[in-house]
Amino acid sequence: MAAGAHRRQMAVFLAAALFLAAVLLLQAANAADAGVTSKYRRKLEATVDMPLDADVFRVPPGYNAPQQVHITLGDQEGTAMLVSWVTPNELGNTTVMYGGAPDRMDMQAQGIHTRYDYFNYTSGFIHHCFLKNLKHSTKYYYAMGFGHTVRAFSFTTPPKPGPDAPIKFGLIGDLGQTFDSNATLSHYEANGGDAVLYLGDLSYADHYPLHDNNRWDTWARFVERSVAYQPWIWTAGNHELDYAPEIGETAPFKPFTHRYPTPYRAAGSTEPFWYSVKLASAHVIVLASYSAYGKYTPQWTWLQDELANRVDRNATPWLIVLVHSPWYNSNSYHYMEGETMRVQFEQWVVDARADLVLAGHVHSYERSHRVSNVAYDIINGKSTPVRDPRAPVYVTIGDGGNVEGIANNFTEPQPAYSAFREASFGHATLDIKNRTHAYYAWHRNQDGAKVVADGVWITNRHWMPTNDDGDTTH
Amino acid sequence: MAAGAHRRQMAVFLAAALFLAAVLLLQAANAADAGVTSKYRRKLEATVDMPLDADVFRVPPGYNAPQQVHITLGDQEGTAMLVSWVTPNELGNTTVMYGGAPDRMDMQAQGIHTRYDYFNYTSGFIHHCFLKNLKHSTKYYYAMGFGHTVRAFSFTTPPKPGPDAPIKFGLIGDLGQTFDSNATLSHYEANGGDAVLYLGDLSYADHYPLHDNNRWDTWARFVERSVAYQPWIWTAGNHELDYAPEIGETAPFKPFTHRYPTPYRAAGSTEPFWYSVKLASAHVIVLASYSAYGKYTPQWTWLQDELANRVDRNATPWLIVLVHSPWYNSNSYHYMEGETMRVQFEQWVVDARADLVLAGHVHSYERSHRVSNVAYDIINGKSTPVRDPRAPVYVTIGDGGNVEGIANNFTEPQPAYSAFREASFGHATLDIKNRTHAYYAWHRNQDGAKVVADGVWITNRHWMPTNDDGDTTH
Ligand SMILES: [Fe+2]
Ligand SMILES: [Fe+2]
Repeated sequence: MAAGAHRRQMAVFLAAALFLAAVLLLQAANAADAGVTSKYRRKLEATVDMPLDADVFRVPPGYNAPQQVHITLGDQEGTAMLVSWVTPNELGNTTVMYGGAPDRMDMQAQGIHTRYDYFNYTSGFIHHCFLKNLKHSTKYYYAMGFGHTVRAFSFTTPPKPGPDAPIKFGLIGDLGQTFDSNATLSHYEANGGDAVLYLGDLSYADHYPLHDNNRWDTWARFVERSVAYQPWIWTAGNHELDYAPEIGETAPFKPFTHRYPTPYRAAGSTEPFWYSVKLASAHVIVLASYSAYGKYTPQWTWLQDELANRVDRNATPWLIVLVHSPWYNSNSYHYMEGETMRVQFEQWVVDARADLVLAGHVHSYERSHRVSNVAYDIINGKSTPVRDPRAPVYVTIGDGGNVEGIANNFTEPQPAYSAFREASFGHATLDIKNRTHAYYAWHRNQDGAKVVADGVWITNRHWMPTNDDGDTTH
Repeated sequence: MAAGAHRRQMAVFLAAALFLAAVLLLQAANAADAGVTSKYRRKLEATVDMPLDADVFRVPPGYNAPQQVHITLGDQEGTAMLVSWVTPNELGNTTVMYGGAPDRMDMQAQGIHTRYDYFNYTSGFIHHCFLKNLKHSTKYYYAMGFGHTVRAFSFTTPPKPGPDAPIKFGLIGDLGQTFDSNATLSHYEANGGDAVLYLGDLSYADHYPLHDNNRWDTWARFVERSVAYQPWIWTAGNHELDYAPEIGETAPFKPFTHRYPTPYRAAGSTEPFWYSVKLASAHVIVLASYSAYGKYTPQWTWLQDELANRVDRNATPWLIVLVHSPWYNSNSYHYMEGETMRVQFEQWVVDARADLVLAGHVHSYERSHRVSNVAYDIINGKSTPVRDPRAPVYVTIGDGGNVEGIANNFTEPQPAYSAFREASFGHATLDIKNRTHAYYAWHRNQDGAKVVADGVWITNRHWMPTNDDGDTTH
């Protein structure tokens, strides 16, 4: 073959290859734009709660040993911590000793205690102790159970709130207490966050007859290995309602409020279900899907004031909203349940340039494009979500692994607002690097813990308000 | 002129006249279809509260004389009555004596009492007494204040619930305590209903510094002349919230719940803000705009159960829903505030073939066509209200006359769902004749009390589900 003919042949081949590559790129781009429904299908093994004698539920040895130890922020700034635990046999001592080293717990705080009855169940002695005047970014050791059995733990306070203070959040929702739940928690532990933004639905005790509150106890023993060492920020889900008028239990959230205090008063709130905290460069607002949010109600009043007067994007550039029932969800399970709260609050969240709205509730994973649906005025017909750089990214991460199983029935076709969705259990992390960039990553439990199944760089809406992020890695 | 030519001329004239008549009829029909914005404009005199020394606020003479006497149904069926009053000087006696004649009050019931503080205000002694085992359609005389100053009143119990039992309701909302309020109440009294469906916002005490609760007392003295003699069915409005964290008042509805009990337990509810009663042929459901109504919440759970299991259209054919914040409103004031609850509950109300949804809140009057907006699924764009014979008629009657004044700024053009609207103070009556027909009439205060400014025959959705009513008199 002549060299000229060979070159022509090579040129044709190259052109064809380039064309093919271009077509593939275009398809990929279109696919990214249209949204991805991951083809990954988990094995649909039975999702069952771990048995009562599972290791993870073990009662710590020793008479009246403190169990179910958990911490959450005690103020808005990260200089206080609320420490809670349960003693099973008698009240014992509500004191917490704490300090900068395991052998130098030289400070002490006095707690309070409470108990509650739920139909035929009586709780143990639930202790809550407030540690204040802590230093930022500092490791503290703490212990309780004095007089009977002492147990010791530690935590590191979050960095002082500031525009470039980094922090890595774990995002977990609807965890429950199945073998899948344990896998989720283990994977999160392997990925090593500083604090958990918990999207609601904790124990699923209400799955049992009479809402067997012993399952609130087992859950708290199960997660102690993480939440005794780093603060989890609590969002109330529907499984926290424990509303059962048929057995005379008519006060919503009774077990939850007795067990899981939140620093709502420090946030100017009047109920534990909506509040805010500042963690490093993040201002985290927790909303309550199952409390009143109509105009004029306490939650509505509080959020209006919060957004107008207490969010300072120069001090804490990242504005993150937590809520249990998602506003954007394209799974058939719980489809449109979040509509009513979206209708009430979406405009505010868009106007505030929130970075992320995180939700649980749907036992699946989904991430949205930046979209809004705020033009509707009843008569103009403008009710379709549209791409909107002002809007937050919506993440649904109710895939912690609870006993109700996976929600594997997505609506078809995938709506334009949905960027990525997959019916797998898992967790996510949000790694805030500085005022402009955060790396968001979702991990499915079937992979090795550190494998990223859906990862995107998120740019800050205050500092990079027009950057079209959220679509960079698919 | 020849007779033939004359006949031709007459024929042409007749044809022209017929054509003109046809055009006018068509225009009228179109106008009715397009909705009427009444051209009536009230004089915009100042709307001010009556002064504290106004006659209508008079404290009844005599030491510790019972004041603020009011009654509401005490059970679901009309065989019990809740009698409430306030004694100003000391507790006194909580007994009510009652019977079939003024001189034969030979039965007695023992009440309870409560008090409350609101910032720097302390209430009088608020008495609540439950009269049970009453006969239907029977006049009872009752008295209280024994030991000090006795006052006597009377009421007639409603007819036994049944498919054709007639009853005439007064519909009043947002009354307040201005001179206009007094005109509204007087006009209602002249029209003579059997019971009032009250659409929320009672005293507007929160209009005063520190929510001056003395204005809760004056309001109750003002309306005593009606509500001591016939039951008013209470809906909670935003002005009942009295939520004022800035002065430490963080428990919503504190004055309202202490003063105005509702028979919610008899209705299977667990909070006083949502419940139902049966009055003659009507099943009346009261909803709470300012409580939680998201899926799974107590109100949501209760309403689902109520509609599925406790509404019996054969026994009580008229299904009437009361709510404070309207779902269909075309006034600029409070526009779309009811959207979030509409999104949550409209489908249920349409499926239940409710006859009427009555609301207050907007200080104006409006009546809708039978419309629904329940086809929306986020991505289909079907979000415009459409004519729907299955749907209720929506009435907004927040025009009782309170201190905030008239809402006289309607959206333009009038939306297709709006049948009639007018910015005047007034009240309405709903005169249920039998299982199929009720005459609904709205009265503006500027007219003589009995003049009907907007009247329609409403046909029952259970018995005449496809009849296109609601457009008959314009
Ligand atoms: Fe949930
Ligand atoms: Fe109102």
